[in-house]
Amino acid sequence: MAEKPLDIIHKSIEEAVLIELKGGREFRGTLKGYDIHMNLVLKDAEELVNGEVVRNFGYVVIRGDSVVLISPNIR
Amino acid sequence: MAEKPLDIIHKSIEEAVLIELKGGREFRGTLKGYDIHMNLVLKDAEELVNGEVVRNFGYVVIRGDSVVLISPNIR
Amino acid sequence: MAEKPLDIIHKSIEEAVLIELKGGREFRGTLKGYDIHMNLVLKDAEELVNGEVVRNFGYVVIRGDSVVLISPNIR
Amino acid sequence: MAEKPLDIIHKSIEEAVLIELKGGREFRGTLKGYDIHMNLVLKDAEELVNGEVVRNFGYVVIRGDSVVLISPNIR
Amino acid sequence: MAEKPLDIIHKSIEEAVLIELKGGREFRGTLKGYDIHMNLVLKDAEELVNGEVVRNFGYVVIRGDSVVLISPNIR
Amino acid sequence: MAEKPLDIIHKSIEEAVLIELKGGREFRGTLKGYDIHMNLVLKDAEELVNGEVVRNFGYVVIRGDSVVLISPNIR
Amino acid sequence: MAEKPLDIIHKSIEEAVLIELKGGREFRGTLKGYDIHMNLVLKDAEELVNGEVVRNFGYVVIRGDSVVLISPNIR
Repeated sequence: MAEKPLDIIHKSIEEAVLIELKGGREFRGTLKGYDIHMNLVLKDAEELVNGEVVRNFGYVVIRGDSVVLISPNIR
Repeated sequence: MAEKPLDIIHKSIEEAVLIELKGGREFRGTLKGYDIHMNLVLKDAEELVNGEVVRNFGYVVIRGDSVVLISPNIR
Repeated sequence: MAEKPLDIIHKSIEEAVLIELKGGREFRGTLKGYDIHMNLVLKDAEELVNGEVVRNFGYVVIRGDSVVLISPNIR
Repeated sequence: MAEKPLDIIHKSIEEAVLIELKGGREFRGTLKGYDIHMNLVLKDAEELVNGEVVRNFGYVVIRGDSVVLISPNIR
Repeated sequence: MAEKPLDIIHKSIEEAVLIELKGGREFRGTLKGYDIHMNLVLKDAEELVNGEVVRNFGYVVIRGDSVVLISPNIR
Repeated sequence: MAEKPLDIIHKSIEEAVLIELKGGREFRGTLKGYDIHMNLVLKDAEELVNGEVVRNFGYVVIRGDSVVLISPNIR
Repeated sequence: MAEKPLDIIHKSIEEAVLIELKGGREFRGTLKGYDIHMNLVLKDAEELVNGEVVRNFGYVVIRGDSVVLISPNIR
């Protein structure tokens, strides 16, 4: 399976990530953790709607069920 | 998996949390319990719509299936 | 897990509860039973839409899949 | 778990029941059977929309996935 | 469980059935097979929208996930 | 279970099939493979919207979760 | 099962693929990995809406739950 999705997520721990949820909302922050359901933990996160920051979170747990995509900064 | 989502939730027991549900509703209250489905128990909770308190609950059990995110007050 | 969601529900047996379903409908009645899927049994239940009673049920089984929250009267 | 949801359904076999589906449609008929997914079998059933009978079924199997609530005639 | 839903479906093999899908579409045809997910096989099937035949199928496999109800011709 | 749904799909390998997805989109092509989730592989497939070909695919894997029905050409 | 869906995906590793998500969004990029839930990893990906590139991603993990179809470039 080459580079498994969860391995890519694992490598992104402590890195900046972009998370997109169903309905088009986005979160940017430092990935602190995850589990096999793709539930995610972000630190120092900001929520963006249409590219504008609308809220800040010190810590936020996002349910995997709501997640559409995760983009890490690795290249 | 670094800081697992359920560990973050566990650490927030007896702390103030913000819960967001599908459809944009929010609840604030003291987290009293949870389970692996992310079903949550809040005490002295208030429901907010567009930032306004619309209802108060002594105790409320929220089904994990409806939860989008949980933000604890830890930093 | 402190106070597990199903334990809170269990403690509410024979007590008055408020149930909210997806779509915003509410039921009030005496909780008679439940199972691990959060399927619920209410007795002498009334359904409310926008706070108005629209129907009464002697007994009603509500599928957990439709449930958003359960608020018992314990404090 | 006191009166389990499936026990209440079991006790309603051969009794008149009201079934409500997602989207607000209702069925009334004699409950002939069920399974653990809450798939249901009704006999001599009528479908109601806004309280009006719109169709009759000799036998009908309803998928549990569509069911919101079941109200038996026991009190 | 008296007459289990899948038993009723099993008895309807080679019989005419009415299938209703989510969104209100209907299929009529001869039931040729099924499985535990309520995936169904119909032969010589017609699709109806608002009671009008809109399409014919020699054979069609319908995913159980889309099925709301199945009405066999047994009485 | 007479003619099981997956057996009908299996018999359609290398045959022309019509696939309908949620939302009413259709695909026609040669069925090359499937799995128990009803994920499907089509070759030389065309996508149709309202009966008009809108796209062509050399190979396409369709997730079973999106599939409503599969109609093979066997009679 | 002839050419299983996941085998087709496996053969597309390091190849250009087109991914379509629920709601009609598309991604094009190099497939780097996948898992049995059809979670996918794309590299050098572009997101298209109505055929126009709207965003670029160095790496992106797409949740299988959002995926409708995957079209590899093999013929």
